[in-house]
Amino acid sequence: MNPTGKVTLLSAGPGDLDLLTLKAAKALACADVVLLDDLVNPEIAALAPQARVIKVGKRGGCRSTPQAFIERLMQRYARKGLHVVRVKGGEALLFGRAGEELAALQRARIPVAIINGVSSAFAAAAGLGVSLTHRDHCQGVIFVTAHLRDHSEPDWRALAATRMTLAIYMGMSRIETLCATLAQALSSDTPAAVVQWAGSANERRVTGTLGTIAAVATEAGLGSPAIILVGDAIGEAITLAAWETEAPLLRSA
Amino acid sequence: MNPTGKVTLLSAGPGDLDLLTLKAAKALACADVVLLDDLVNPEIAALAPQARVIKVGKRGGCRSTPQAFIERLMQRYARKGLHVVRVKGGEALLFGRAGEELAALQRARIPVAIINGVSSAFAAAAGLGVSLTHRDHCQGVIFVTAHLRDHSEPDWRALAATRMTLAIYMGMSRIETLCATLAQALSSDTPAAVVQWAGSANERRVTGTLGTIAAVATEAGLGSPAIILVGDAIGEAITLAAWETEAPLLRSA
Repeated sequence: MNPTGKVTLLSAGPGDLDLLTLKAAKALACADVVLLDDLVNPEIAALAPQARVIKVGKRGGCRSTPQAFIERLMQRYARKGLHVVRVKGGEALLFGRAGEELAALQRARIPVAIINGVSSAFAAAAGLGVSLTHRDHCQGVIFVTAHLRDHSEPDWRALAATRMTLAIYMGMSRIETLCATLAQALSSDTPAAVVQWAGSANERRVTGTLGTIAAVATEAGLGSPAIILVGDAIGEAITLAAWETEAPLLRSA
Repeated sequence: MNPTGKVTLLSAGPGDLDLLTLKAAKALACADVVLLDDLVNPEIAALAPQARVIKVGKRGGCRSTPQAFIERLMQRYARKGLHVVRVKGGEALLFGRAGEELAALQRARIPVAIINGVSSAFAAAAGLGVSLTHRDHCQGVIFVTAHLRDHSEPDWRALAATRMTLAIYMGMSRIETLCATLAQALSSDTPAAVVQWAGSANERRVTGTLGTIAAVATEAGLGSPAIILVGDAIGEAITLAAWETEAPLLRSA
């Protein structure tokens, strides 16, 4: 192995390239190879002018690049002595299999670094003008994926019992049933919101309650990728400044 | 009110200025007034060369600027037509009273925008080389503060029942009792870590289990501000590349 080869797992944030960190921009500027996930804004390639850019999307349910192939690809380029930047949407260390990729790189003895970023639930909250943890309402927030490997469901009742804000990733295909389950454990009046393409130019938002949000989001045509936010803290959303280029709130119920 | 005045709630990230977003750097560059929280790296002032910089720390238990005064200060400068940038450590929308500040600004009809950042639990995970949500172990992660307004405790048993990774903020003053409580609900063998000053030049880390981590952290002299991470996913931590300027792992037990 060439000792100078290395891999950087880089968090691309939610879409708007201005939400990249300065550290991420610097890593891209000196990348030799860039591996891009499906949900990453493709314009990010402009920040890596010297790099060979390879798309390795792996969207749930679609035909896509197998995980093992992506891992081999990283290792092959790193072994050539190249700086491989593996770009993941949002925050690399939240969902998205970073754990498996880190383990594979360690087994292969490839040096690896990690660059943090903004996860899309934070961008969703920013779009809504709301703290995820307003202390009048909760002591924290839960980031959970509704898309489990074995096609089972998260234990929604256990999550509801914590009385914390829920930020649900990959839940749009089952929004109706998950909101109904949560409404039983909490209350159908609990504030809820859906933000599609949070933190990107295409951002679209609706607000409502556990009782209304599934219908409101469906009616507005919102689908994946989106974040579902649930909890009393979400009811504190304010109207943001018009001087910000903001996507309008589509509907509130 | 001068219509051009405005407030930006800006997330400064965990300390390393390279972890600021490009959007944050741009907002600072055109700020008129910058209000800095206690835990923010003071070198950030260099990014706001035109601004008057005011420190408004509010550290738990210490003599500090009251929240109401900070809110009045933001409004006073915004009403003069100035661009006020309120800088919060980590991610502004996670803990830290952004909810109250947003509400106060809305009541005062001051235009407000929000810029996301990297929360320190993500930086802690990056330092440890670990995903917060390795799918072999969990379906999500809980961000919880151990420092409650009424001095009560979070419901640790309800949190443990979710089987998710726990990222505990402001827990160092009670690390022994909270780990003991969690060890009863989970297992004393559950992997745990403490990362002080995560994502800054002073970062210090220890790893262990729920049974050992309180003693290990105390012995290593780790105190606030620190993140406590708990869960099987944390046991997957890898050794990161030496070419990254990394704080060494102090002790693993």
